[in-house]
Order: sequence, then structure tokens, then C-alpha cells
Amino acid sequence: MTNIKATNITWHEGHVDRDEREKLLNQKGALIWMTGLSGSGKSTIAYTLEHALVQRGHLAYVLDGDNIRHGLNKNLGFSAEDRTENIRRIGEVGKLYADTGIITITAFISPYQADRAIARETVGNDDFFEVFCDTPLDVCEERDPKGLYKKARAGEIKGFTGIDDPYEAPEKPESIIDTSKLSPQEAAVTLCEMLENAGKIQALKD
Amino acid sequence: MTNIKATNITWHEGHVDRDEREKLLNQKGALIWMTGLSGSGKSTIAYTLEHALVQRGHLAYVLDGDNIRHGLNKNLGFSAEDRTENIRRIGEVGKLYADTGIITITAFISPYQADRAIARETVGNDDFFEVFCDTPLDVCEERDPKGLYKKARAGEIKGFTGIDDPYEAPEKPESIIDTSKLSPQEAAVTLCEMLENAGKIQALKD
Repeated sequence: MTNIKATNITWHEGHVDRDEREKLLNQKGALIWMTGLSGSGKSTIAYTLEHALVQRGHLAYVLDGDNIRHGLNKNLGFSAEDRTENIRRIGEVGKLYADTGIITITAFISPYQADRAIARETVGNDDFFEVFCDTPLDVCEERDPKGLYKKARAGEIKGFTGIDDPYEAPEKPESIIDTSKLSPQEAAVTLCEMLENAGKIQALKD
Repeated sequence: MTNIKATNITWHEGHVDRDEREKLLNQKGALIWMTGLSGSGKSTIAYTLEHALVQRGHLAYVLDGDNIRHGLNKNLGFSAEDRTENIRRIGEVGKLYADTGIITITAFISPYQADRAIARETVGNDDFFEVFCDTPLDVCEERDPKGLYKKARAGEIKGFTGIDDPYEAPEKPESIIDTSKLSPQEAAVTLCEMLENAGKIQALKD
């Protein structure tokens, strides 16, 4: 039984090519790297985009603090060295995901230009889409969804991005989104169009 | 334009559920953890199984030394501590991949029972399939595909699994494969049947 079925399987000596998986998925692998202040809308846009893509039949996945900081990177703290290693590992996982053919969306503050540049280099320029959530600090601080700005202003948290630690804005991001002007749905549409224009997904037919 | 299209997108506040992605893929996420001596056939079976699954329309991906040791884990050496961290990270990535709905196959010697137990616990018992490549040492050593046994016997490599470092065989693996008796194709069929029986993929129709 096993022998008979086995004859139908070709023995290949290496990986399945990326484009074979991409044909299967009817999409091309990509990493959408959301960056911006706490409260700038990264996670909300990431989740909305994930749902939008899956609704369109695409395989998309969000990497964020919930599944990375409590998993792969749970042995990292918040020192400069650990922050860099945090972003490095996310970039490496993003590279694997892109090679698997998946459209991945990462939602991390990722405040340092140098760290994001390493992620871009790791993933490769054709697959890397840096999206700058350029929501003004005062809007982010008013939202304060996790109460972190309040604690940072009270001095209870040290080294908080935007308060007493710098946020280095992207110089040439693939997209800039200000969520004080754009709804999460509008942002998701903008990013879907970005993926369409890059040939990662097909445009919707009218 | 953007506004009109945007109204069709639902704004969700959390991740797409795993089962939505699994429906899209017509499969359930799983991690097949190949373990065994160097030369025992782990990679060959992993690649053959990957091709077999993709031929059947399933999304499968191999994590092995080529894409892990040179990427995510390139800052790890071969000390006991680093070996454990190596396996821990692979387990965490495997968990993310399973949550994405992918059938992932890992091909690492992973000689220590305790490390594999951590990977199983991380991924979860329902998604974790430990496959013991139980090929006799003398067969592995005769194959010696990378010339490593020769170097280990000559004392040029220290701490080589099976020679001067122990391999702890799995106690209750989901499958045992001896590649001195089974071809890679036969092994792939066996593992496809394992996945069918676990409800991860559908059986082929006659």
C-alpha cells in the first residue's frame, strides 16, 4: 500500500521553490513593517489589514508584542542591546515568512533607524514595506491605550519612546499613515493598494 | 475612492482566528519535528515530504540548518546553553507557523530529550509530531554526507552527537523511521498518513 502510493512522490533534494508556494497561495510573500510611537495605530491597522487580506483570500499574519515578546523574544529585556536583538529576530522571522509566501505585518515601535535598516537588509528590499504611522505625539498621548504615557510622564517608566527616548522617523518609508486623519479601514485599503502596485496581490475586479 | 472601498472592510480589534486561515488553506497547522543522528535522513525526508505536501496543494515549509543557523540563530554557537536556545527558538517559530496554519517540518539533530520536550510544550501536543529517524549509527557513519563522522573519529570535531556526545532517543515519538529500510518517498507517505490520521490534511481520494 505504502509502496504503491510512494511511487507517485518525486524525491527532490532541496526545498520547494518559493514561487511554487506563491502560486499555490496566489500571492507573493511580503513583510509590512509598521513603525511608530506607542498609540500611533500600528496594531489596529495591522489587525484590520490582516482581516482585509484574509477576506480577500490571502494568507496574512500579524507579528506583534503579544506573540513575539511572550514567545520567541521572552528572554529579551529593554536594554539597547536587547532591543536591537528583538528587532533582528523579528526581521529574521519575517524573512522566513516571506520565503514561505506569506504576507506578514509586524507591529512594533521599532524606534531606531539602524535596527529597521537591518530588518530591511535581512528581508530584502523587494519584500520589505516600511509603513510609518506618523500620528502626532499629542494624539498618541491622548489615546494612551495602555496608560504608558501617563506612567512615563510620572517618571514611573524610563526610556519611553517619544518622552525620554528618541523615535527616529523613517527617511524613505514605502507608506506614511496618520491615523488622526485616516481610519483603520482607510489605512488598510491604502496598504492593500500598495501591495497591489508592488505585484504582491492582484487588484480586486470591479 | 479610498473611502468607498474602505466601507467594505470590517474593522476587527484582534487577530484573525487561526481556524479562518486553516479554512483558507484547507489544512490544519502542524509541526513535524524530525530528530536523529547526522546522516539519519532527516533533511532528505523533510524535503521529500515538503514536495509531497505541496504537490497535494498544501502549504508546507522546512526549517533546517540552512535557513535557521544562518539567519535567526546565527548568533548562537554549540555550547550546551546555545544548543538549548537554538531548539527553544525553533520551537517558538514552529508555534507561530502552526498558528499561521502551516505544516512545518524541522530537521535538526536535536539530541536532548529535555529540549525536545520544551519544543513540544511550546507548540502544544495536538500540533507537535515527533519523528524519530532511527537509522543505525553505522549506516549514518557510512553515509557521512558532510564528512563529519570522519572528522569526529579523527578528533577534529569535539562533542559530535553519536560519537562523543549522547543522542537521547525519543521515548514516545509519533513516528519512527529507519531510512536503512524505508526510502524517502515511503517515509513521506508514512508521514502524510500520520497527518491524515490526525486530521491535519484530508486523505487522498481513490
